[in-house]
Amino acid sequence: MYNILKNHIAKFAQVSDNDFEQIKKYFNIKETCKKENLLKEGQICRHHYFVLEGLLRKFYINEKGTEQTTEFAIETWWITDNFAYENRLATEFFIQAVEKSTLLYITSENQQKLLEEFPVMERYFRFVYQRAYAAAQKRIKFLFSFSKEEFYFQAVRNHPEFIQRVPQYLIASYLGFTPEYLSEIRKKLLS
Amino acid sequence: MYNILKNHIAKFAQVSDNDFEQIKKYFNIKETCKKENLLKEGQICRHHYFVLEGLLRKFYINEKGTEQTTEFAIETWWITDNFAYENRLATEFFIQAVEKSTLLYITSENQQKLLEEFPVMERYFRFVYQRAYAAAQKRIKFLFSFSKEEFYFQAVRNHPEFIQRVPQYLIASYLGFTPEYLSEIRKKLLS
Repeated sequence: MYNILKNHIAKFAQVSDNDFEQIKKYFNIKETCKKENLLKEGQICRHHYFVLEGLLRKFYINEKGTEQTTEFAIETWWITDNFAYENRLATEFFIQAVEKSTLLYITSENQQKLLEEFPVMERYFRFVYQRAYAAAQKRIKFLFSFSKEEFYFQAVRNHPEFIQRVPQYLIASYLGFTPEYLSEIRKKLLS
Repeated sequence: MYNILKNHIAKFAQVSDNDFEQIKKYFNIKETCKKENLLKEGQICRHHYFVLEGLLRKFYINEKGTEQTTEFAIETWWITDNFAYENRLATEFFIQAVEKSTLLYITSENQQKLLEEFPVMERYFRFVYQRAYAAAQKRIKFLFSFSKEEFYFQAVRNHPEFIQRVPQYLIASYLGFTPEYLSEIRKKLLS
């Protein structure tokens, strides 16, 4: 399973087999059940997750008491509450397995030690954060630009495999509307 | 002026004086007039800007033909259209000086060369992107959580110096409402 991380690192940085044997010791493997919570609101955010297999989501409970999903993570994506993780603070988010998943995770302390012992990993994480930031900037533009309906149509066009895989009520939660409203939009799209 | 960058790097990574003399050669200085456009929609995004003095904003023209501001950058902040910059693509954004500003900028090619010649700069940019990403994640939560009115009240409470400095019509553009509506909210806040 560690090979998935090894191959992902190799896309961005050169790490020898010997070094990777050391690097992987900083990580632990975790198997989750479907719907298992890895992080809950109010807990100190200690872990950064790398998805080997499966699908996670991040959400918070909004003032109406409903779950607002802000992020998904599929294979080779990293996910955490970055601000709380870096500063070891209590989080306002939940991280939950949407599917039965297999993950690697690292603690904030170990990520710091890893970067000190293997500076080549700075390059890897620089790419990880750079791309995640660029994607978040795109998301912010989308949130302003599109009506929720258009946002859904875009997602269906650009990420059909994702829309197929994620349960409809979670797509609704990501887009910020009710499952009933999503069901109406889908009918419109199919007609 | 280069000392501002040097001090900012020193917060995150150890760079010797000799190395910094080499590093700074990758950058150019630019002085801008107020309202000068550094990047326009449709242009290839070639530069990453570091603000030494002044204030920049990033915006796009939405379907109604109005300017939607998505980001500001003050002293020691970096700004670009990251996706277009990394991939050397045409941008959908404008970057404009809100005040007369002094900037450093680097091209995408030079940033890559800099990172190859001085791997210690990977650590610096890893921190830059990591924090920018965490801030963007917070922004996304805010965009979902708060009504625009609450968003303004939050900004006044948390960043009063910023609200003072940025012209009101640009605050309105950042929050996605008309200057008239902002003016009504401000009256409410003062009353």
